[in-house]
Amino acid sequence: MSDPNTILIESIKRLLRRDADIHLRKIINKTHAADLSVIFHSLSVTHQLRLFNLIGDIEKKGILFSELDQDDFQDLIGKLDLDDVVDICEAMPTDDVADILGRLPEDLSDSILQKMEKEDSEEVEGLLQFDDDSAGGIMTPEFVALREDTTAKECIESLQKEHLDVEMPFYLYIVDEYGHLTGVSSLRQLVVNPPNQKLKDFMTTDVISVRTDMDQEEVAKIVARYDILAVPVVDSTNVLVGIVTVDDVIDIFRREATEDMLKMAGAGEEFVETKSVIKSTRLRLPWLFASCIGGIMAFFIIGNFEQSLSKIAALAAFIPVIMGMGGNIGTQSSTIVVRGLATGRLNINDTWPLVIKELSIGLILGIVYGVLIGTVAQIKYDTLMLACSVSLAVLCSMSVAALVGSLVPMLLARVNIDPAIATGPFVTTSIDIISVLFYFQIATTLLGI
Amino acid sequence: MSDPNTILIESIKRLLRRDADIHLRKIINKTHAADLSVIFHSLSVTHQLRLFNLIGDIEKKGILFSELDQDDFQDLIGKLDLDDVVDICEAMPTDDVADILGRLPEDLSDSILQKMEKEDSEEVEGLLQFDDDSAGGIMTPEFVALREDTTAKECIESLQKEHLDVEMPFYLYIVDEYGHLTGVSSLRQLVVNPPNQKLKDFMTTDVISVRTDMDQEEVAKIVARYDILAVPVVDSTNVLVGIVTVDDVIDIFRREATEDMLKMAGAGEEFVETKSVIKSTRLRLPWLFASCIGGIMAFFIIGNFEQSLSKIAALAAFIPVIMGMGGNIGTQSSTIVVRGLATGRLNINDTWPLVIKELSIGLILGIVYGVLIGTVAQIKYDTLMLACSVSLAVLCSMSVAALVGSLVPMLLARVNIDPAIATGPFVTTSIDIISVLFYFQIATTLLGI
Repeated sequence: MSDPNTILIESIKRLLRRDADIHLRKIINKTHAADLSVIFHSLSVTHQLRLFNLIGDIEKKGILFSELDQDDFQDLIGKLDLDDVVDICEAMPTDDVADILGRLPEDLSDSILQKMEKEDSEEVEGLLQFDDDSAGGIMTPEFVALREDTTAKECIESLQKEHLDVEMPFYLYIVDEYGHLTGVSSLRQLVVNPPNQKLKDFMTTDVISVRTDMDQEEVAKIVARYDILAVPVVDSTNVLVGIVTVDDVIDIFRREATEDMLKMAGAGEEFVETKSVIKSTRLRLPWLFASCIGGIMAFFIIGNFEQSLSKIAALAAFIPVIMGMGGNIGTQSSTIVVRGLATGRLNINDTWPLVIKELSIGLILGIVYGVLIGTVAQIKYDTLMLACSVSLAVLCSMSVAALVGSLVPMLLARVNIDPAIATGPFVTTSIDIISVLFYFQIATTLLGI
Repeated sequence: MSDPNTILIESIKRLLRRDADIHLRKIINKTHAADLSVIFHSLSVTHQLRLFNLIGDIEKKGILFSELDQDDFQDLIGKLDLDDVVDICEAMPTDDVADILGRLPEDLSDSILQKMEKEDSEEVEGLLQFDDDSAGGIMTPEFVALREDTTAKECIESLQKEHLDVEMPFYLYIVDEYGHLTGVSSLRQLVVNPPNQKLKDFMTTDVISVRTDMDQEEVAKIVARYDILAVPVVDSTNVLVGIVTVDDVIDIFRREATEDMLKMAGAGEEFVETKSVIKSTRLRLPWLFASCIGGIMAFFIIGNFEQSLSKIAALAAFIPVIMGMGGNIGTQSSTIVVRGLATGRLNINDTWPLVIKELSIGLILGIVYGVLIGTVAQIKYDTLMLACSVSLAVLCSMSVAALVGSLVPMLLARVNIDPAIATGPFVTTSIDIISVLFYFQIATTLLGI
């Protein structure tokens, strides 16, 4: 886990203190923009600004813009001259510009767009009209599109003259006179086929494409499923308007996995890079409120059994283990389901077989741990009915938890609510309440108190 | 979330019942192997076998081998003729063969290797010697390596004649006479440079490479960080031995995210595709045992305060809310830390600033919810000291939980234990115990019972 950047950060800080600009410039320009973003995260905005101005290559500045954390980027851009920002944006790939402008306050992004060259700003505005999370929102409009009677040789010539701004031209798309996508070929096919062979003779006509309004997660799954390096994006009339490349797909998967994990833990949109304690606190407050309400409900339930408790105080001692066993198996079930849905391994049509399987697991484990914990209760208190109540409560709590933990995310997915978002607090809190209720109901009945 | 494969599965099942082989063959050969693996998952092994034999293209059979779930693959291969399996393996990329053989029982994989052509089986055995999770274990030995005085034209000719088995030849690697990696070029540079230009004139000498023993997660992070399509793998003497391609990197990220989530939920290696209830139960048993032991410890702690409980039975009513609030904030903190470490956004050197930040959040939220829950207690029982005990217990439980939730994964990462594996059960259980202990200690002291 140790990070080679740590040593680099230390020497950069030392050089900054010594004002050793020549040395700094050398280091900065040898370091990849992706690593610079990590280094910037450890520096004050004044130091960030000094380093930023030492970067020689304008394209590198652009990559750094894309790579910086949200907070770092906003701080830095506030200190930069607007004209410099515009120059950098013009040197960046259009989809990256749309990305960063989408993260800025509207007045700032508007003034940047106004100052950009008309052709560039129109492309960016074209992208900004799509939903951020859709294929249109993540695609780049820079791709290679050719007509089907172009020869391999002409394709190569066209790549040498035009299309030099295309980021990753491993696929060549073939379009008809109206811009409709009709085929795909690869750089590889271009070099292995004879120079005067026409695209239509070796192109693949069975092209996998996505629509502009497809959700980015679906797009990512398609790229992953078919092991392709880019997927073409078409509008509703099958006109090719952009491509989504595999590097963006990796980012989508990583971000989605992070978001799912945080949502399931009830930490909403809090990322580790959120620097402010106040912001983090605010993000966690509502989720904890749900669990607080649940806790208060459990408290009123137990309050109703106060009389029984004052007769057999030992009843209280089993509350944690019953809640804990239910809560844990519920988390296991819901995590497996949420992740299964996210990776496409689980289909919402499989609801019943899945829930029955989970319920069986809950029952088996409930019997195992019910007997175990009941035995401990019997040894400690030598009251058979108390031991039986505890055993039964563990069994009920664990089977209900497995049922709720698997059923709730499946039902949410069916009605198109993100299963990750409601699973954590909802499942945990309801299992807590159900467990406590079952336990006291069973105990008071069996013990006759 | 609805799956277009569902309709396909239904019609295939219908055709299988009708023995409509001609029709089936047409559908099967038009369907991508990745989709076939999903379809196979819904079928009996007899039906899987029938469909498999209808596949015309041997390479497609190979992709299907790689795509099938572990259980489905083992079932299917048990029914196939060994000679057919060997033929399919010989048509597959070497890294994929090593992958699937690694998943088979040793005697079966040995007999396959013995029957394969010597050249192929040696390559596979070369890969099998590396750790599954290392760069060596995931690389493919099929890549394009050329000498630095080759011209662009000669490169293209060589691609047309040889290297036709290379999966994704977007990068050309340049090696010296001993096979040492000295540079890299791309297919794109090949076509945009004049035909008689030599590789050494336009190759990049600053090549990012990884060592065979590097952990696959680190390899994946490098590919993602630098937005490259493949990374060359070298041995300890810098000899180029393979490449890791971006499609494998996507799989690594998705698998690692799934594993981390399941580990954190204490569901170990259980995936949704684990069909057997018994296997799932066995996988969850040990993790639940940890939480059971924790629950029993809490039970003995509360048992010690039985006298106080019989005096004020209402004490029991607050156990769930105090445990719940602590448990939830602890899960939030540990999830943020574990994911931050996994994505590289968090560095183990940041331990103290992070823990202090989490502790501050715990204190603030502890005060907020302590006052809230204390007020409810006061309204219900009108006993100031009871309300104060509950408030203080919530405050202590939440701050300690935030501290433990952030500190434990950081410490585990420092001693090179996977933070995800121990976070879930360890953090939850210890927070439960600490919460209960604090609560009863504070309450008995303040209430003088």
